[in-house]
Amino acid sequence: MTFRDDGAAALEWVAAYLDRLREFPVLAQVEPGEIRSRLPDQAPEAPEPFAAVLRDLDAVLMDGFTHWQSPRYFAYFANTGSEPGILAELLIAGLNQVGILWRTSPALQELEEATLDWLRQLLGLPPEFQGHIEDTASVGTLAALAAARGAAPGRRVVLASEHAHSSVDKAARILELELRKVPVDDGYRLRADALELADACAVVATIGTTSTASVDPVPELAAACEDAGAWLHVDAAYAGAAAVCEELRPLFAGWERADSVVVNPHKWLATPMDCSTLWTRRVEAFRDAFSLVPEYLRVSEEVMSLNEVSVPLGRRFRALKLWAVLRCFGREGLQAMIREHVRLAAEFERWVEAEPGWEVSAPRLFSLVCFRRAGSDADNEALLERVNASGEVFLSHTRLDGRYVLRLAIGNARTTEDDVRLAWDVLRREAG
Amino acid sequence: MTFRDDGAAALEWVAAYLDRLREFPVLAQVEPGEIRSRLPDQAPEAPEPFAAVLRDLDAVLMDGFTHWQSPRYFAYFANTGSEPGILAELLIAGLNQVGILWRTSPALQELEEATLDWLRQLLGLPPEFQGHIEDTASVGTLAALAAARGAAPGRRVVLASEHAHSSVDKAARILELELRKVPVDDGYRLRADALELADACAVVATIGTTSTASVDPVPELAAACEDAGAWLHVDAAYAGAAAVCEELRPLFAGWERADSVVVNPHKWLATPMDCSTLWTRRVEAFRDAFSLVPEYLRVSEEVMSLNEVSVPLGRRFRALKLWAVLRCFGREGLQAMIREHVRLAAEFERWVEAEPGWEVSAPRLFSLVCFRRAGSDADNEALLERVNASGEVFLSHTRLDGRYVLRLAIGNARTTEDDVRLAWDVLRREAG
Repeated sequence: MTFRDDGAAALEWVAAYLDRLREFPVLAQVEPGEIRSRLPDQAPEAPEPFAAVLRDLDAVLMDGFTHWQSPRYFAYFANTGSEPGILAELLIAGLNQVGILWRTSPALQELEEATLDWLRQLLGLPPEFQGHIEDTASVGTLAALAAARGAAPGRRVVLASEHAHSSVDKAARILELELRKVPVDDGYRLRADALELADACAVVATIGTTSTASVDPVPELAAACEDAGAWLHVDAAYAGAAAVCEELRPLFAGWERADSVVVNPHKWLATPMDCSTLWTRRVEAFRDAFSLVPEYLRVSEEVMSLNEVSVPLGRRFRALKLWAVLRCFGREGLQAMIREHVRLAAEFERWVEAEPGWEVSAPRLFSLVCFRRAGSDADNEALLERVNASGEVFLSHTRLDGRYVLRLAIGNARTTEDDVRLAWDVLRREAG
Repeated sequence: MTFRDDGAAALEWVAAYLDRLREFPVLAQVEPGEIRSRLPDQAPEAPEPFAAVLRDLDAVLMDGFTHWQSPRYFAYFANTGSEPGILAELLIAGLNQVGILWRTSPALQELEEATLDWLRQLLGLPPEFQGHIEDTASVGTLAALAAARGAAPGRRVVLASEHAHSSVDKAARILELELRKVPVDDGYRLRADALELADACAVVATIGTTSTASVDPVPELAAACEDAGAWLHVDAAYAGAAAVCEELRPLFAGWERADSVVVNPHKWLATPMDCSTLWTRRVEAFRDAFSLVPEYLRVSEEVMSLNEVSVPLGRRFRALKLWAVLRCFGREGLQAMIREHVRLAAEFERWVEAEPGWEVSAPRLFSLVCFRRAGSDADNEALLERVNASGEVFLSHTRLDGRYVLRLAIGNARTTEDDVRLAWDVLRREAG
C-alpha cells in the first residue's frame, strides 16, 4: 500500500467516525485493564501494514474511547476537534516542522506570532500583549508563575481563590511557591477584601473557574497587584474564548491589566488537542526565566526565538491548526458557535429552574450549568453514575459548599438543542 | 466542500510534498519578518474555505519552511515524520481524545502504558521501568529533576557534564537547583573522578550528547549515585533509539541502573514531532511531585492517572502515533533504519579522514560526525554559511575545545548514500 492509499483509508475512517458520533456510548464502558489485555505484550518483529492499525482502532481500541467529539459530551469542559483543525494536524505532521530557533522554521515562528496576534485582537486584548502557544494551561501557568517569581525576588507567595484550577497548585509545587487559597463569595468569586498581598509575587485570577465558571473580580485584583508590585496572571483557559463575543466582554473587564493571560483554543475554540495560548505584556520576565543560548544553538540572525519564553526547547507547528480554525470559522463562525452554546446553556438552566425537585446550584455566566436534584449527595452521585453508565450522555460533577453538584458543560460545535434536550430527558428519567 | 473533499486535497498536498522533498532549499532562505509581512494583520470576519489554507501553504508559507523532512537535512539531530506517524496524527486529531483521568480515555492511557512497555523492551530496559510520554525532553528532564529534588530534601545540587543539554540548565533554573558542570575527558565524556556528590540530589548522565553524541560513563555514575543516594537521570533523547540494535547496546551499559531515562521517538524513531518518552523505576517520587486530585476530578475507579506523574493535566493521544510507528516499522524496520544511518555516518567519517585538509573532530559513536576543515574558526563558520545558503543541504555546528566544528547528523529515514555524498560534495566545493 502506498501513502496515498493508506491515507485515503485513514481519512475515510475519520470521516465515518465523525458521521457516527451519536452512535457510541459517550463515556467508555470498559473496566480498567480491559483494553490493555487485548494488546500484544510486545512490538512486532516485522513491519505490519497500516491497515492493521486502522483495523485495531475498531477491533481493539474503540470500546476504550470516551468520545470527546460526541455532541453529547457535557463533562468537564466539552471541546471540539473541528474539521479544519483535524486536517491541519495532517499537514502539521506531514511538514514535521520543529521550532527551536527561528531558522529551524521561520514560517512556524512567524505564523505563531501572527496568529496569536489575530487571536489577541479577536479577544479584545491590547496590542502590548505578545503571545505564544504552550501545550496546556498547566505549562502556561507554570511559565507565568516562573516569570512572576523571578520578577519579585524573595517573595514566595501566590494567591488564588479556592476555586482556582489544580494546575495552579501543581505549578506552585514545582516552583516551591506557597499557594494561599483565598475564600470566595457566594458567587464563587475570589473575595478581594480577603487578599493579603504581603510576600506575594503573584495573584492568579480565574475567568471561568472549573467548578462553576465563576469570574474573579479582576479589576479589583489588578489594582491591588499594581499597588503591591505583584504579578497578575489571568487563567481564562475555558472561558477566554467567549471574549470573541462583544456582548460577553463585560465579563472580562480588567484582564487587559494582567501581566499574563492564558486561553485554551483546544477547549472552546474548535482546535484539536493540544493548543493553549499565553500572552504577556512582560516578555522580558519570561526571557529572564527561560532564555539560554548554548553554542550549538548560536546563529547569526538577531531574532528572539520562542524557546526563550517557554519551557520546552522544541515546539510543534501548532500555529497551523489555530490559523486554519480562525480562517475557516472566521470571527463570525466562532461567535456563532459560542453564542449558540451560551444560549443552549441558558435554555437548560431554565428547564432545571422550572422543574420541581431540581435546582440550579451556581450562577450561570457562560456555557456551564451547575445543578442538582433535591436530595442527598449520595442520591446525586448515584444519579450521575446511572446517567453516565447509560452511555447516552456524559456529565461530570463538582462539590459546592460541601454539596455534590452536577455539571453540564456545552462546548462541542456539533451539539444541538436536541442533544441538550436528550441530556435533560436522561437526567429526569434516571432520577425516576 | 465537505470534510472528505477537503481531506482528500490535504492528503494529496502532503503526498506531493513528500514526493518533492529534494526540490526545496533545505534551510529556509527568507529574511526575518518576510513571512509575517505576507500575512494579513487580522483574522477574517467570515469563514474561508479550507482550500484557501492549502493554497497559502504554498503561496505564503512554503518559503519559510526549513525542511526537516528533507533527506538532506543534517543539522542538529535529523528526524523523520514517517508515513504511519503522519497518518496516525490525522487519526489522533479526528478522535481528539484528551487524557486527564483514566475514564476520559481508557484507550489512551492503556495504549500509552502498553506502547511504552513495548518500547522499553525494544530498548532493553528492565521491567521495573514504567513509562509515559511527555512533549519534549525538556519537560521530561524537568519532571525527573522535580522528582529527584523531592526525593532528597535539602540537597539542591545537580551535576551534569559541560556537554549536557541546555534543557538541564533550564530545568535547574525552574526548580531553583544549582547546576554544577563537571569537566569532560578527551572524548567529551563526564569525568567521573571529578564528581563531587555532596549536596547533590541528582546527576544527569547523557548517552549521546548534543555536540558530539559522546556517552558519559554511566556504570561509574550509577555506582556513585547509589552510594550517595542521588538520583541518576539518563538523557538519551537522541541516541536512545540506537538501543534497539543489540550491537549498539554496549554504549548503553549502566542505564538500567538509572532512576529515570528519557528517549525521544520524535528524534530517531520516525515519530512526528512531538513525542518524548520517559521511564522511571521510582514512579512514587513522580507522584509525590505531581499528584493532585481536586474534587472535580475525583472518580470511583481506583486507577492511577498519567496526570499524576507529569506536568500537564491533559495529554494528547500521542501513544497512537508511537504505536503506529512501532507496528508499521517493526523491530526489524527500526533496526534497519538505525543501522543504515550509523553506516552512512561511518562512511562520511571515512571520507573526511581520507581527505587532506579535513579532520574528524570527535569520536563518532552513532550517526553524528563532528569535523572541520583545517583552518581558522572564521573559515569554518563562513564555509558552513555558504553550504547552508546553497540550500542543497543543511548542517549545523558546535564548539569543541574552543574551536568551531561542523556537525553532520544523519537521522532521516529517507536519507540515502547519495544524499550524504551530496553533502560531502557541497562541503568540498564550497571549501574550494
